[in-house]
Amino acid sequence: LYDGLILSTVGLGPQDLDLLKVDYPVVILGERIFDGPVDHVAMPNVDGSDAAVSHLVDRGCRRVLILEGPEMSEVSMPSLRFEGYRRALARAGIEVDPDLVVALPRVDMEGGRTAIARTLAAGIAFDAVFCVTDTLALGALRGLADAGIRVPDQVKLVGFDNIAEGEYSTPSLTSVAPDHEAMARTAVDLLLARILSREQVKTEEFVSPFELVIRESTGTA
Amino acid sequence: LYDGLILSTVGLGPQDLDLLKVDYPVVILGERIFDGPVDHVAMPNVDGSDAAVSHLVDRGCRRVLILEGPEMSEVSMPSLRFEGYRRALARAGIEVDPDLVVALPRVDMEGGRTAIARTLAAGIAFDAVFCVTDTLALGALRGLADAGIRVPDQVKLVGFDNIAEGEYSTPSLTSVAPDHEAMARTAVDLLLARILSREQVKTEEFVSPFELVIRESTGTA
Repeated sequence: LYDGLILSTVGLGPQDLDLLKVDYPVVILGERIFDGPVDHVAMPNVDGSDAAVSHLVDRGCRRVLILEGPEMSEVSMPSLRFEGYRRALARAGIEVDPDLVVALPRVDMEGGRTAIARTLAAGIAFDAVFCVTDTLALGALRGLADAGIRVPDQVKLVGFDNIAEGEYSTPSLTSVAPDHEAMARTAVDLLLARILSREQVKTEEFVSPFELVIRESTGTA
Repeated sequence: LYDGLILSTVGLGPQDLDLLKVDYPVVILGERIFDGPVDHVAMPNVDGSDAAVSHLVDRGCRRVLILEGPEMSEVSMPSLRFEGYRRALARAGIEVDPDLVVALPRVDMEGGRTAIARTLAAGIAFDAVFCVTDTLALGALRGLADAGIRVPDQVKLVGFDNIAEGEYSTPSLTSVAPDHEAMARTAVDLLLARILSREQVKTEEFVSPFELVIRESTGTA
């Protein structure tokens, strides 16, 4: 029925390896953690998060709250975006404060808003927020507005994905922008190469380049 | 293959009547203008818009900018949401000022933002904005923020559809909320009734009830 498959999915893990034992070429697109027998086009999870948090540190932030998804509990290891966070802080000589690491059951706007409210209610101080997705970040922005906290004056905030909505929010959202076009093009190229030549070649891991788009939420000045 | 069809589409008009000459029951869901030989479950276009604009007038606004889609040019008649706008103003003794009627080629965030910028650049004064969709309204909010205009202090703003994002924007968005559940339920009920009884009965027109959800963009006080 088809000669190859580009699989773009969420939540695929090592336990799903059997699904990939098929007799046509497969390329995994955008999956967060994967170490399988097929080509993989990945988001810049570690480096992108590192750049986001380094940007906050460069702007003088020292207490960076991270809002993450449920990854940590699911695969019982830190997520790749958390790893970027940890690495950026380490480079600045800042230790991870467990109080500032919030893992949410769901990555949506309400989750971001609630996480901010709870963190404030717990009396935990922070001068920046790194959200692992822009959707979370838009909710967090609203949570900060609810509490009368001014962004970026009092708290700076960075998201990840560079979704269109982040350009229109007030304040607009600084975000890690993966190169979706390069990812799509690479996935197609890898798949075509395997369809045209069925020889066993080493599997490729392509990590998307990215850009940190700086907008109002971290201060445009 | 199937016993009936619920058709939920955008841009269907009288010119498409032939498409509906099929030998199974059809219910049209949410179409803006339709006067065909089938049941129709409609958005509260006229009454909802009337309520939105009346709310602005009640809050003291007299110069209400309306941002609309391309309907006016397409079917060479005012759209239903414009009709609600006109009716609410007429009731308050306010004549429609053509300067305040902006028809946009595309109903998206960028369109809303640009429309505000252009209207301000043209020196046209307004104290409120009614956007025929929330997507437009989110863009318009951003356009007002770009110009340093405070919402709701200087300009009040209402959208239509009550999308989730409007709850999280800053300021949050006052919006007309159609009862989507009632619409879906009614569409299914009407279709089932026609499937179970093929007798010729008069076609039904059901207009969704709605609620005006008042949030920060028109002042919660």
